[in-house]
Amino acid sequence: MKALYAQSGGVTSVINASAYGVIDEARKNGLEMMVGINGVTGILKEKFLDTTDLDIEFLKYTPAGAFGSCRKKMKNDADIEKLFNIFQKNEISYFFYNGGNDSMDTAWRVQAEAQRRGYELKVVGVPKTIDNDLPHTDHCPGYGSAAKYIATSMMEASLDLRSMWVDSTQVFVMEIMGRNAGWLAASAGLGWINGIGADVILLPEVPFNKDKFLAAVGDAIAKKGHCSIAVAEGIKYPDGFFVADMGFTDSFGNRQLGGVGFTIAGMVRSELGLKTHVSIPDYLQRSGRHMASAVDVEEAEMCGRMAVRYALEDNCGVMVTMERVSDNPYQIKYSSIPLNLVADATKMLPRDFYNEYTITEKFFDYALPLIQGEPELPYKNGLPSYKLLDL
Amino acid sequence: MKALYAQSGGVTSVINASAYGVIDEARKNGLEMMVGINGVTGILKEKFLDTTDLDIEFLKYTPAGAFGSCRKKMKNDADIEKLFNIFQKNEISYFFYNGGNDSMDTAWRVQAEAQRRGYELKVVGVPKTIDNDLPHTDHCPGYGSAAKYIATSMMEASLDLRSMWVDSTQVFVMEIMGRNAGWLAASAGLGWINGIGADVILLPEVPFNKDKFLAAVGDAIAKKGHCSIAVAEGIKYPDGFFVADMGFTDSFGNRQLGGVGFTIAGMVRSELGLKTHVSIPDYLQRSGRHMASAVDVEEAEMCGRMAVRYALEDNCGVMVTMERVSDNPYQIKYSSIPLNLVADATKMLPRDFYNEYTITEKFFDYALPLIQGEPELPYKNGLPSYKLLDL
Repeated sequence: MKALYAQSGGVTSVINASAYGVIDEARKNGLEMMVGINGVTGILKEKFLDTTDLDIEFLKYTPAGAFGSCRKKMKNDADIEKLFNIFQKNEISYFFYNGGNDSMDTAWRVQAEAQRRGYELKVVGVPKTIDNDLPHTDHCPGYGSAAKYIATSMMEASLDLRSMWVDSTQVFVMEIMGRNAGWLAASAGLGWINGIGADVILLPEVPFNKDKFLAAVGDAIAKKGHCSIAVAEGIKYPDGFFVADMGFTDSFGNRQLGGVGFTIAGMVRSELGLKTHVSIPDYLQRSGRHMASAVDVEEAEMCGRMAVRYALEDNCGVMVTMERVSDNPYQIKYSSIPLNLVADATKMLPRDFYNEYTITEKFFDYALPLIQGEPELPYKNGLPSYKLLDL
Repeated sequence: MKALYAQSGGVTSVINASAYGVIDEARKNGLEMMVGINGVTGILKEKFLDTTDLDIEFLKYTPAGAFGSCRKKMKNDADIEKLFNIFQKNEISYFFYNGGNDSMDTAWRVQAEAQRRGYELKVVGVPKTIDNDLPHTDHCPGYGSAAKYIATSMMEASLDLRSMWVDSTQVFVMEIMGRNAGWLAASAGLGWINGIGADVILLPEVPFNKDKFLAAVGDAIAKKGHCSIAVAEGIKYPDGFFVADMGFTDSFGNRQLGGVGFTIAGMVRSELGLKTHVSIPDYLQRSGRHMASAVDVEEAEMCGRMAVRYALEDNCGVMVTMERVSDNPYQIKYSSIPLNLVADATKMLPRDFYNEYTITEKFFDYALPLIQGEPELPYKNGLPSYKLLDL
């Protein structure tokens, strides 16, 4: 039986750990595993890699998509036709697609089309997104590591700001990924568990109000002289217009955002007359494997393994999910949800996870278990010893 | 005998390791060590902390300035007068000032003024700057860790870009600190020792030529489809005008720069029609203690110790320096240089350390020894366990 695995959407620092789980579990179950290069984009060009002789150890610790990712949506009949011709030609019986909302939509379309055609295909989605906004799962592989990276970086930058404020920079702004939901921006407050974190967090869930925001910054300045701000790229005005709309859309139809950190800092500078610094980690927050969470790495691998097990049990047309059994001790169990219930849907931060500009105890209880542990990372020449395939 | 230590200028992830070295060495030698809060700014307000009973272990691993820093220059006669009154009142006989070019200028003025007044004062400068641009020392504490952070981050972001380029982002730009010299931007190429790094590095040492730059990006795109770019904030046009000049100066008279990453990305987008991503680590690169170099941490501490030893040997009016004995095995020896030879001077990248857009073997030989080793860092609740003093 031949199986196909591919990666799709924005990558994470642990998506390859899921690839490791899928491939290793397939090996244990006698499945011949092919990998599609660059998701469906490469699959449509028959760009495959046979993993039979591949040493997959490096997948455990190398960030980003080792097999290439893509942004392509399968909405076109000709593409679907071509895909099934290629599946047939290559005798693909299992398809594991590793991605976020948009990618689960693709997986769902492929499964539905197989059914329509009577083509024997088992599709299972493996979740992945630093945005953590997939519904019906407690959280997503990739989130814990990105949250740990953001929390740590905000602690460090806030310590820096605390050193400088007396006669220099008083306000630090970090622009954090998260178009629709504030999961990752919220993690900028987790450092408070160890004494320092973001003072003001701007979430997409809270309509942006400039006057109230500036008042919150002013309060922090009055209290201690400095203020560190976390701003999600997707914050919106009450009318729904993005604060940082760049004026165009990407191939998924999503509005392109950018520079909200500078927009926010500009308000502080011009209205409060304070010196600001702006950080935009961008890719660093989603590929920073050097600051990954051990829990996240383990779960990413396990989600990959579960995908294979579900497919072999004929539980297909689903995405692997994690259900939280308890916060303390932290315990989850793996489960699954039909792909069509995940596709294109977004899970926002629950209302009791945040106040206007801060996070609540409930968010700490939720997020802290996800950032625990420092996973192994081999170093060579003083730098991480990541491995690259010749794609 | 009373001694005073203070921190000044932009902080680093290991400046507190120098503070540890100064304080611990002072203790061993029976010096009573006071710390000035926020450098000369706090000293002028008599904001002192007696370190006699302070548990200083946290200084080994907590980034940024634990005692606060400042941007103040001592160019004003009234300030100098006040400073000496405060020194006299507090019976200060030793002054250790930890900073970069501007701070060594302050240290030098204080030493010269003490001599003029016949006030018995021994001033020793402890070097610190991620910019690595102090002359007469092989390198500066703070640089190795920042270089390791930048090299690692560029590796990780380049892996991310390599995953995404086929139908999305093809060019990644990272804006790196460095107003006058390209030491830190150059470190974005070090990842090539492990197989991936910046494709194009824009250094302040190389006058910016838009056409040649775009051609270099075009070459990388033609060759492999994607291109990662490191740009120093201080790159200039041939006429000396900063590419990212913001139109105003700071209190040290330095031109304020910002957003060169977006300027560069805009050129790529509009002229080559490629999708770009921009990262501006900002404070993260200089306070990222979680990605520090063990060599740097050790040397930062040792520079602090040497400052005390030199002062006790009557070798004063100097800054501690490091001289490289050999690259392989890496070996340095500590030495000193008169403060006036360091003040306000800048060490550029030697011409044989770089080509137009890349770094040479000589730079690898120079920089790799400085980023070796992963120093201890205690974690609590899944995050670094940094400690804060109540300043």
